[in-house]
Amino acid sequence: MLPRVRLAYETYGTLAPDRSNVILACHALSGDAHAAGWSDEPDAPSAVDGFGAEDKGIAPRGGLGWWDGMIGPGKAFDTNRYFVICSNVIGSCRGSTGPSSLDPETGRPYGMRFPVVTVGDMVTAQRELLRLLGIPRLLSISGGSLGGMQAIEWAVRYPELVDSCIPVASTPRLAPMGVAWNFIAREAIMSDPNWRNGDYYGLEPPTRGLAVARMVGHVTYLSAQSMWDKFGRRLQEREDYSYSFAPDLAVESYLRHQGSSFVKRFDANAYLYLSRAITYYDLARSHGGGSLERAVAGVRARFLLLAFSSDWLYPPSDSEALAAALRAQGKDVQQVTIPSSYGHDAFLLEEARQTELISAFLAETYDRVRQSSAVQR
Amino acid sequence: MLPRVRLAYETYGTLAPDRSNVILACHALSGDAHAAGWSDEPDAPSAVDGFGAEDKGIAPRGGLGWWDGMIGPGKAFDTNRYFVICSNVIGSCRGSTGPSSLDPETGRPYGMRFPVVTVGDMVTAQRELLRLLGIPRLLSISGGSLGGMQAIEWAVRYPELVDSCIPVASTPRLAPMGVAWNFIAREAIMSDPNWRNGDYYGLEPPTRGLAVARMVGHVTYLSAQSMWDKFGRRLQEREDYSYSFAPDLAVESYLRHQGSSFVKRFDANAYLYLSRAITYYDLARSHGGGSLERAVAGVRARFLLLAFSSDWLYPPSDSEALAAALRAQGKDVQQVTIPSSYGHDAFLLEEARQTELISAFLAETYDRVRQSSAVQR
Repeated sequence: MLPRVRLAYETYGTLAPDRSNVILACHALSGDAHAAGWSDEPDAPSAVDGFGAEDKGIAPRGGLGWWDGMIGPGKAFDTNRYFVICSNVIGSCRGSTGPSSLDPETGRPYGMRFPVVTVGDMVTAQRELLRLLGIPRLLSISGGSLGGMQAIEWAVRYPELVDSCIPVASTPRLAPMGVAWNFIAREAIMSDPNWRNGDYYGLEPPTRGLAVARMVGHVTYLSAQSMWDKFGRRLQEREDYSYSFAPDLAVESYLRHQGSSFVKRFDANAYLYLSRAITYYDLARSHGGGSLERAVAGVRARFLLLAFSSDWLYPPSDSEALAAALRAQGKDVQQVTIPSSYGHDAFLLEEARQTELISAFLAETYDRVRQSSAVQR
Repeated sequence: MLPRVRLAYETYGTLAPDRSNVILACHALSGDAHAAGWSDEPDAPSAVDGFGAEDKGIAPRGGLGWWDGMIGPGKAFDTNRYFVICSNVIGSCRGSTGPSSLDPETGRPYGMRFPVVTVGDMVTAQRELLRLLGIPRLLSISGGSLGGMQAIEWAVRYPELVDSCIPVASTPRLAPMGVAWNFIAREAIMSDPNWRNGDYYGLEPPTRGLAVARMVGHVTYLSAQSMWDKFGRRLQEREDYSYSFAPDLAVESYLRHQGSSFVKRFDANAYLYLSRAITYYDLARSHGGGSLERAVAGVRARFLLLAFSSDWLYPPSDSEALAAALRAQGKDVQQVTIPSSYGHDAFLLEEARQTELISAFLAETYDRVRQSSAVQR
C-alpha cells in the first residue's frame, strides 16, 4: 500500500453549474495528463512523440497534447460543451506517483519496491481525484489502448457513476500476441545491466534496453501497409547500401530515432509497471469469474466501441467480443470498426471519422442525461 | 574478400548416374546443414529448436533435421528418387565460415571484421560447393524464408543451371515490417555490453541481447491465431497472477525458454550477419535496376511459389508479386497460398499440403528434364 499518492491532471473547458458535463480522458502507455492544447513546459508535450505525431505535422518535441486533434472547441470532445479532465496514471513518471517517486519511508525512489499496479488501481486513483475535485459523475469516459482499458474498467467498477463509455482501439484483455511483445519489451529493459534491478536513479539509466523496448512497442503500433506507405525500402540519405550494420534504410533510422528520443522523457521502471498492468488486464477474470458476459452484467453506461481495421495489436475482434458480451446482457452498445491503414496508432490519427461518431454519441448521451434529470426534477 | 571458405553440408538419397536428380535445400536464419534424418552429434539437431518443433513432437534438442518432415523416402523431397544437398550458409556459425571462424591472417576470430555477406554471396559459395562435388546442374532448389531467397537468387543468377525453383514462405525483398523487426533484433544484440563490438569470443558472450533478438524473431514467426491456440492467456503452472514481473503467463514462460535455449547453440555475430543479409536482399534492386520484371527476365527455371495465409512476415502478397513478375515475362509459374494458422512457421509445419504440391511439381519437372535430355541424346 502506498502511504500517499499524487496525480498530475489537466482540465479543458468549463464545468457546468450542475456538473453534468464531465468527460474523463485516459491516456495510453507513454501518455500523460497533457491531452490537449499547447504547453510551454519543456517536457509536457512529449506524450505525442513517436505516436505517429510527425504524420500530423506536430513537432516531435512540440507542446501539443496527445489527443489535441480530438479535445478542444468544436472537436470530438467539444470543450465548448464539455469539461474534460485528463490525469497521468498511477505508476507512470509524468507527474503522478510511480516507481521513480520518492518513498517517504526511505527518502529514496521506490524503484521495484513500488507495488505492481493494475488498471483497477489506476481507476481507483482517478475516482479519488474526482472526489477531491467535487465531480459527482461522468457524462463519459474515453481513451485509446491502455486508456480504453481504464474506460471499460470504470464502467464496470462504478456503474452508477458513468453515463457513457468510449473505449477506442482497446480490449477487455490483451491477446497473447500483445502479451508477448510486452514481455519482450520488459526483458529488453531488465536485461540492460544499467537497470540494476530498478535502482538506477542517480546513476546511468538503462537507456539502451528502454530504447529497444520502445522500438518493439512502436512497430506494434504500425501496420504493414502504413510502413510501406511511410518508408517502403527507401534508403536514408544515401544512394546505395553501406554494406555495414549502420541504419541504411529509412525505417531503421526512424526506429533508432524513436528509441533515443523516448529515453529522454520516459522512466524505464515506469515502462515496466505500465506494460505489466496492460498484460494483467483481464476483465472477465477480475470481474466475471472468467466470463466476459458476467463481468459486464452490472454496466449501466451506454457504449461506443471504436476499433481500426489494420490494428493487429488491439484487433477489431477484441472490440467486437466486448460488444457481443454487452449486447448479450441487453446493454446499449454501438461497435464501429473504422477502415484505416494506420494500425493501432489510428486512434491518434484518424480524427475525422472518430469525431463524427463520438460527437453524435456524446450529444445524444448529454440530451438523454439532461432529459432524465429534468424529469427527476 | 575471404582467403578461404569452409561449407558444412549433408546429402540425402543417391546421386543418379547422369546426375540429373539433384535438389539443393536452403535453410533459414537459424538453420544449418542438418536438414533431415537423425544426427547423434550433440548440437547437430538444433536447427529445429524453436521453429515450432514441439508442435510436431520433436524434442527441442533432439537430432532431427530442420526439414525432416519434407526430406526423406516417400516425402515431398523423395530421397528414393532425388539426391538432396543442404549446406550451412556462409556467415553462419554451424560449420561454415562465419564471424566466429578464425581469421587465418590474425589467428583470432573475425568478429565484425568478417565481410558483410549477401544472399548473393551465399549462393556463390553454394555454386562452388556444387562444382567441387561435380554436380553440373540442379533439378530443383527450395527453401523457406531466407532459404527461399537463396532459391530465387539461384534461379536468377544461374538460369542455365536450374530446372525448377520452389521458394516457400519467402519474398524477393523483405517488407519494411520485417526490416524493422530485424533491425530491432540487431539493436538488442549490439546494445548488450557483452557484445563488445563483436570481440566477445573467449569472454562472456552477449547472451541476454541475443535472447531478446531470438524472442523478437520467434514471435514474428507465429500468428495471432496460433498464439491463441497454443497459449491463450493461460498461466504457467499457477492459479493466479503473482503480481510481479515473473513470467506468469504461459506465453511469457515459453518465450524466455526460447531465448535461453537459443543462445546455447547460436553465435550472436552470426545472427547479426544473417539478419543483415535478409534485410539487404532486394532482387529488383540487385538484378533489375529497381524492376522486378527485369530482374527475372533471364529466368529459365519453372517456379512453384508457396505462401501461407497467416504469414505476416513474408506475406502471400510478396509471393504473388514475384509470381506476377515471372508471368509478365512469360515464365512457367504456379503460386499457391496454403491456408494455415501457423504464421511464417507454417513452412516447417504444414507438411501435408506442401508435400502434395511439391511432389507433383518435382515429378513433372523430372519427367520433362528426362524427356528433353532423351531428345537431345
